[in-house]
Amino acid sequence: MAFQINAELQYDVLMRSTVLLNIHALATQNQTLRLESFQVTPGVKWEELPMGTGENRYIRLETGNATKLEVSYTVMAETRHTMVSHEEIQGIPISEIHRSAISYLFPSRYCQSDRMGRLAMKMFGGIDHPYHQTVAIADWIFENIDYLSGATNEETSAFDTVTQRAGVCRDFAHLGIAFCRALSIPARYFAGYACNMQPPDFHACFEACIGNRWFIFDPTRLAALNGLVRIATGRDAADAAVATIFGQMQMTGMSVSCVSDEFQPLSAADLAGRALLIEP
Amino acid sequence: MAFQINAELQYDVLMRSTVLLNIHALATQNQTLRLESFQVTPGVKWEELPMGTGENRYIRLETGNATKLEVSYTVMAETRHTMVSHEEIQGIPISEIHRSAISYLFPSRYCQSDRMGRLAMKMFGGIDHPYHQTVAIADWIFENIDYLSGATNEETSAFDTVTQRAGVCRDFAHLGIAFCRALSIPARYFAGYACNMQPPDFHACFEACIGNRWFIFDPTRLAALNGLVRIATGRDAADAAVATIFGQMQMTGMSVSCVSDEFQPLSAADLAGRALLIEP
Amino acid sequence: MAFQINAELQYDVLMRSTVLLNIHALATQNQTLRLESFQVTPGVKWEELPMGTGENRYIRLETGNATKLEVSYTVMAETRHTMVSHEEIQGIPISEIHRSAISYLFPSRYCQSDRMGRLAMKMFGGIDHPYHQTVAIADWIFENIDYLSGATNEETSAFDTVTQRAGVCRDFAHLGIAFCRALSIPARYFAGYACNMQPPDFHACFEACIGNRWFIFDPTRLAALNGLVRIATGRDAADAAVATIFGQMQMTGMSVSCVSDEFQPLSAADLAGRALLIEP
Amino acid sequence: MAFQINAELQYDVLMRSTVLLNIHALATQNQTLRLESFQVTPGVKWEELPMGTGENRYIRLETGNATKLEVSYTVMAETRHTMVSHEEIQGIPISEIHRSAISYLFPSRYCQSDRMGRLAMKMFGGIDHPYHQTVAIADWIFENIDYLSGATNEETSAFDTVTQRAGVCRDFAHLGIAFCRALSIPARYFAGYACNMQPPDFHACFEACIGNRWFIFDPTRLAALNGLVRIATGRDAADAAVATIFGQMQMTGMSVSCVSDEFQPLSAADLAGRALLIEP
Repeated sequence: MAFQINAELQYDVLMRSTVLLNIHALATQNQTLRLESFQVTPGVKWEELPMGTGENRYIRLETGNATKLEVSYTVMAETRHTMVSHEEIQGIPISEIHRSAISYLFPSRYCQSDRMGRLAMKMFGGIDHPYHQTVAIADWIFENIDYLSGATNEETSAFDTVTQRAGVCRDFAHLGIAFCRALSIPARYFAGYACNMQPPDFHACFEACIGNRWFIFDPTRLAALNGLVRIATGRDAADAAVATIFGQMQMTGMSVSCVSDEFQPLSAADLAGRALLIEP
Repeated sequence: MAFQINAELQYDVLMRSTVLLNIHALATQNQTLRLESFQVTPGVKWEELPMGTGENRYIRLETGNATKLEVSYTVMAETRHTMVSHEEIQGIPISEIHRSAISYLFPSRYCQSDRMGRLAMKMFGGIDHPYHQTVAIADWIFENIDYLSGATNEETSAFDTVTQRAGVCRDFAHLGIAFCRALSIPARYFAGYACNMQPPDFHACFEACIGNRWFIFDPTRLAALNGLVRIATGRDAADAAVATIFGQMQMTGMSVSCVSDEFQPLSAADLAGRALLIEP
Repeated sequence: MAFQINAELQYDVLMRSTVLLNIHALATQNQTLRLESFQVTPGVKWEELPMGTGENRYIRLETGNATKLEVSYTVMAETRHTMVSHEEIQGIPISEIHRSAISYLFPSRYCQSDRMGRLAMKMFGGIDHPYHQTVAIADWIFENIDYLSGATNEETSAFDTVTQRAGVCRDFAHLGIAFCRALSIPARYFAGYACNMQPPDFHACFEACIGNRWFIFDPTRLAALNGLVRIATGRDAADAAVATIFGQMQMTGMSVSCVSDEFQPLSAADLAGRALLIEP
Repeated sequence: MAFQINAELQYDVLMRSTVLLNIHALATQNQTLRLESFQVTPGVKWEELPMGTGENRYIRLETGNATKLEVSYTVMAETRHTMVSHEEIQGIPISEIHRSAISYLFPSRYCQSDRMGRLAMKMFGGIDHPYHQTVAIADWIFENIDYLSGATNEETSAFDTVTQRAGVCRDFAHLGIAFCRALSIPARYFAGYACNMQPPDFHACFEACIGNRWFIFDPTRLAALNGLVRIATGRDAADAAVATIFGQMQMTGMSVSCVSDEFQPLSAADLAGRALLIEP
């Protein structure tokens, strides 16, 4: 399916700054990009930093003497996803987890799975398949955490959210990741665009590695899983912030859109008994 | 210089477990291995998981039905290091940091640099060269944090230690890393063996990336910098724990040794005006 | 009912120290003391500090030059309690809470009720009577928190325990208090002796103020409610530590006993439909 | 000196609520009140809750069916204070601290002195008189913490602020209290009005008990010490919030003034070598 994506960011530059932007869609096996365009205020230098791991396309900008920074990104992203029936999803022991997933077992800044093991076992340890555990985690988050803008800030972590019970997509994803890792299920942060999401914004959800395949879960239920376009993958939001600013800038405007003529959001019925996989 | 390394670990296995061990020395450009031997209790399966990033050599063990696990590791590691005079160390702007160092700017589980920016600027922001900032950080930690076994646990983070003012090598390293990142200096965790350290144990310190070269710092001052043998590099101890156990095991014994006939520890005089670099 | 209480504490005194001890039973309307005896190592000075609020009987000791401190406390405590049938327990609005209970609505060091409001409402907000809410809280803690010595330390708070899911009587009490306050039910810490508790130790539980009467709850279920003898009442353990040491001392021994010839522990059947009240 | 005080608060009442207000000046030995007037929206019921300890004059309001709540408080407060020369301030051992000050040695919700002992000793332990320690604490806070509205919230504690290095008067007071208690100096929260403070607002600072007298310190240096009018004393802000709302209300306006015709703010020169004492 093809998605037309546009992101516009405006900043006042208060001092000469360097910015790492995470707004470019990734080009992956199942995500093809066309007609990509990236424009910034004239005079501002930028370069793409291709990460060896292929999990981000940081754009590094130098504001130089500019006092305003305007960024405009457009792309046509074509994505493919795979539906897998529940019966085909195999749990595997730790001893067979692919080495590329190992680091996603460990705690990270916003996902302190090391402090949540006993809780995760009590809540989800009785479920015997890691896929169903992860479904139960995502359902539990949706049902028990209030989606509430302004309830959290950039320092909020899964350990906070599990008790404070409110947050935004980033917090929901962190909590899902922390629970999974606490159950020895590798889990990672997915930052991306989401087709037709209301209100339009950057989105975050998470992927869990079950049987060495990365299934996607959105505990906010704000986005259709087949309408996601990947920007970055990481351990948590520390790896995938929209903008990391070295210097001083103030955001003055932002607009995001992700639309598609042909998009048919997967319904609950479509997904009954099946899971969705974006990358192998 | 060549170091003879030996590590022995003993565990009672309370239930069938999988273990990730981080005790193998890395083979790198400046660290050559000979006569490596790894032995485990007969019947225990193991494999090496080469990480794509080359920063760990996890050994994954399956205890199977064993009720005891004994691990014995021996290697002869030959290391080279480079001395660089302070004058030759160039600070560079964020805009020139190599992309491989970028992720070491971000906060991690035990190094919440995002919460320590104002503190780091007040303490070290007035020093104008990132190398001298890092020296000041390592000196400050040595002078202000008490080295005290048992004062901390596996959940202790830099945010705790900066106030609680006590810890072990792991905590010292985390604090150094957090301060560096808060000042926009990429920093990473170094886990390794340390020649002649008393008492012998696994050691941790940190590397800071200045002018795109990774200099090593040991804020505990327990080990000579030219006597270090690298086991792993990571964002923090979450990436480089000696053993991560999935299941239930209890350590019953551990011994570590790292010795060398030819070792001459670098003295303060040797290091006057010079910094040490292990890997480019 | 009369309880024979004995507590013995031994310390090595590492430097001249002052100690606040909280081991004396309180004399209250429903708790009468006889044959009280308090002995300390000869040469150690001590005095009782009667608190204006009547909620502690601190003993302040000066070790002077003593290198050992031995404390021996004995008392015969006669307690009365009141059984109240559930139907007679009235919930009252905040506007009618007695002023003496007001400060027990506020968060304290180990009971951060201000961070747990949303959680408490989700878990217990649907129960319509504060007495039944408190019963549900105590039951939930018993069922969901593991009683596990060594799992926590003196810095552990309710905010930690609600996620870490393990602790000792102090942690259980803190969590009960925090949930109650988060629901606008005044709650306070009860430190005391517990008849026939195994293993014998100082005990902690909590009281909740419902309809302006203080009902007692023990979420550990380790002690019979009619076998409790009060030492102190406070906001949390910060007010009622067994010993607060200013200086440096190391405990070398402790024994506690609380026995009664006539004691008949209340059974669940005895308590069916009834709540227990120690002080009005 | 006589201060004319006025406080006006406006709220939208979103649901029937009970409010505890802490805006009434206390009547104490050294603070006399005249012409006190308290008015609320007609139909709203209220009562004063005299606390046994004399440390607050809570006003409890019932909104009933009102949809707006307006509160207007006026008083003429006459205060006396005592200047004590530094030489006359005696440090006393813990063994002589008056029992009424004992509870102010313990950690509280926002002042986790139990986690800051080592830090406090390293920073201020070398100063040999508790008065000079407290002066050093207040000076250190002024010099090292940025006064910055919006940097903190109602959950921020001294343990956060000591590292985050920014806050408002409440945070400054909490940090001063925590350091004092960590050094075994009883310390308490002072909430009050401050003459001519810009911008006008409720103010918070702290008192430390030295030689059994309570000296006042304002680490923000925003208010003249002889221009303070006491509203409440407590362990920390948990005891002395301006308004504690049970229900749901939104503040829509607030104005505070505290003026005096005759007020001569004490200058640094006036205070040279002398400390100020409001209550014995």
